Amino acid sequence: MVDIAARVYDHRWKIDPIVRSLIDTDFYKLLMCQSVFRNRPEANVTFSLINRSKQIRLADIVDEGELREQLDHIRSLSLTRGESTWLRGNTFYGKRQMFRPDFMEWFEALRLPPYHLEKRDGQYELTFEGKWPEVMLWEIPALAVLMELRSRAVMQDMGRFELQVLYARAMTKLWEKVEKLREVPNLRLADFGTRRRHSFLWQDWCVRAMVEGLGSKFVGTSNCLIAKNRDLEAIGTNAHELPMVYAALADSDAELRQAPYRVLEEWQEEHDGNLRIILPDTYGTAGFLAGAPDWLASWTGMRIDSGSPEEGAEAAIAWWQAKGEDPRKKLVIFSDGLDVDRIAQLQARFAGRVRISFGWGTLMTNDFRGLVPGDALAPFSLVCKAVAANGRPTVKLSDNPSKAMGPPEEIERYKRVFGVGHQKAMEVLV
Amino acid sequence: MVDIAARVYDHRWKIDPIVRSLIDTDFYKLLMCQSVFRNRPEANVTFSLINRSKQIRLADIVDEGELREQLDHIRSLSLTRGESTWLRGNTFYGKRQMFRPDFMEWFEALRLPPYHLEKRDGQYELTFEGKWPEVMLWEIPALAVLMELRSRAVMQDMGRFELQVLYARAMTKLWEKVEKLREVPNLRLADFGTRRRHSFLWQDWCVRAMVEGLGSKFVGTSNCLIAKNRDLEAIGTNAHELPMVYAALADSDAELRQAPYRVLEEWQEEHDGNLRIILPDTYGTAGFLAGAPDWLASWTGMRIDSGSPEEGAEAAIAWWQAKGEDPRKKLVIFSDGLDVDRIAQLQARFAGRVRISFGWGTLMTNDFRGLVPGDALAPFSLVCKAVAANGRPTVKLSDNPSKAMGPPEEIERYKRVFGVGHQKAMEVLV
Repeated sequence: MVDIAARVYDHRWKIDPIVRSLIDTDFYKLLMCQSVFRNRPEANVTFSLINRSKQIRLADIVDEGELREQLDHIRSLSLTRGESTWLRGNTFYGKRQMFRPDFMEWFEALRLPPYHLEKRDGQYELTFEGKWPEVMLWEIPALAVLMELRSRAVMQDMGRFELQVLYARAMTKLWEKVEKLREVPNLRLADFGTRRRHSFLWQDWCVRAMVEGLGSKFVGTSNCLIAKNRDLEAIGTNAHELPMVYAALADSDAELRQAPYRVLEEWQEEHDGNLRIILPDTYGTAGFLAGAPDWLASWTGMRIDSGSPEEGAEAAIAWWQAKGEDPRKKLVIFSDGLDVDRIAQLQARFAGRVRISFGWGTLMTNDFRGLVPGDALAPFSLVCKAVAANGRPTVKLSDNPSKAMGPPEEIERYKRVFGVGHQKAMEVLV
Repeated sequence: MVDIAARVYDHRWKIDPIVRSLIDTDFYKLLMCQSVFRNRPEANVTFSLINRSKQIRLADIVDEGELREQLDHIRSLSLTRGESTWLRGNTFYGKRQMFRPDFMEWFEALRLPPYHLEKRDGQYELTFEGKWPEVMLWEIPALAVLMELRSRAVMQDMGRFELQVLYARAMTKLWEKVEKLREVPNLRLADFGTRRRHSFLWQDWCVRAMVEGLGSKFVGTSNCLIAKNRDLEAIGTNAHELPMVYAALADSDAELRQAPYRVLEEWQEEHDGNLRIILPDTYGTAGFLAGAPDWLASWTGMRIDSGSPEEGAEAAIAWWQAKGEDPRKKLVIFSDGLDVDRIAQLQARFAGRVRISFGWGTLMTNDFRGLVPGDALAPFSLVCKAVAANGRPTVKLSDNPSKAMGPPEEIERYKRVFGVGHQKAMEVLV
């Protein structure tokens, strides 16, 4: 039966929005935003889109008008009453009122600041400059918009049944992963795939499929909108953004050296339990752990986000042991470039030695590899990073030099300050 | 947006009917029905369901109450005004008014006659006895109901996403066939899959996918309802039922020997062009062709429905040549147990030697092989045949003894009358 009103409403659609809500973003962005809002509200930060996959000429694929329309739409969004209620009233990691009233009031009044868009060499230069707590909220929606506009561009000439079969194949592919993951004992896995998803509707489908297919092995999603709509736990802690900006704001090498710990010191003032997760790799895990203060060893766990995950987790275990902590009570979160086979391997290797959790991203929400000619829907490595703070460039080293960013001379300075020696380069797929 | 009226209507559904219309049947049934209505309206015929796949214990799988509900629903159906208009006004094979006014008046008033249902040894004994033109219309809906109730029974405990992935896999499977068929030059293929379809909605999906995926290579469907709804050509001619009943009605061996030709003589009075298709295998192709009258050689083509299709087509070609006809102007229709590889092989072998067309059935509309544990959705060999006429048993031999039916002593008599020697048995998959 045709719903005439819905059809008429559809005909009036100016655009089919990719980002439907300000909370269609990763939970850790909101946690970090609240922290920044309290500790560094006036820092002036620039975020910039960086396409590491240069062969994907985004500006040739994605229409600029459509991109502007989607970005403008995001600027028209504000927190709805229901979203605000969910953030204020929800229990996150067993804790109520995680978001303070002053932060919520600010967030309720927020509209995202202007963007700056140019084309250069077949790529989009998309930047966001302004007060840190405002511009930081552009990261996830900007990525989601670019990823989905690219998907739409590739699919726009496909027939109705061809499209249905494309999604049928993608569903089959995801379900085969679910069937493999079911066999992994004691698995705990969350969706971290918002930023590089194929599309919003596809991420939502994937999450719901995981709920049915994995049951209690699936612990939640980093996407707040999907967590709210599907009654799931919102998952996340903190990211490289904090130490990167704190480091850029440091006025001396000594201050720079302490910046990553300063971040966690301030984090500790606000959060406890499952939110006390160390992300040690921003300027090299080895140096970070070697110089870490003793109080950090009492934190709940560590997230391994670059380099060899086996080496990262072994380093964490050794460090906890050296500090007199029992690694079996600690949580290791793997979140870098995962797919089912790696997840099963890592679980098998570390089960019983530490508590383990997985943040599964791009190859959960965007594994369209091999599904169209020329692999034109394969995911690619797009990021949106804080590139400057109060006029100074930011730097990231990580445990994989292929993920390093910043001006070469600053990278050298950071390597010297943080005592980073030779690092093994690994391919960055997504 | 929820369509409240539709939801309320849905809640009132007593059953979700499998057969939605009296024209949800094969086109050739209606053509044959009109012929029978003119030539043998008073013959008393019994149709019976025969499950050749004894290992599928249908009565253990399908609930008797549900089966009765579906069959009762079919008895409540009558031709709608739109269906009648479509049959009266449509052009079939380029000809208008294929259905005579007297037949249409009778059909418009028709309700299907009662059925007789019993359980025995884990199987359903389902029979229809009455005037031939009435009971013959039970064949296709009865098969479709049993096939779909079996599908529903297997799927009833599956989760929502599990089901979606099941269909995703089936869609992918069909589309891979479409992609292979696209590469077959000069292909002409029609859907003959109504009787053993997975479900009505699935057949409808398959047909529409073929329309998009194969374009002009897909020439139509045998299903009148789908042809009407999707604006396609209805395809079909005649079947074994006619010679089987004519043979059973014969009063002597001499009359029996002529029965298959008598059928075609009467058919010729009514039809020309593409409807003049010989189905030679009811009592063995070799004997049929050896004894065929000369006028049959002028007919448009021949349908190969049992035995080795290569041998059948070669026999047809040799026969036409012997009769001084040019085989390149003749049409060979392959319709037995086809799948894509066989279709491509047969097309490659006979292209340029005869005109070729394919009637693709079960493995188009019901290829759920390998998709659920225990292969519980794999198609199986269910038929509904005329088993008696005016109190005498019918007999079918065909070119594959595995497809023979009838009492053993009658089979022997028919073999003698039609001069059928040794036949090579071939497995009947569907």
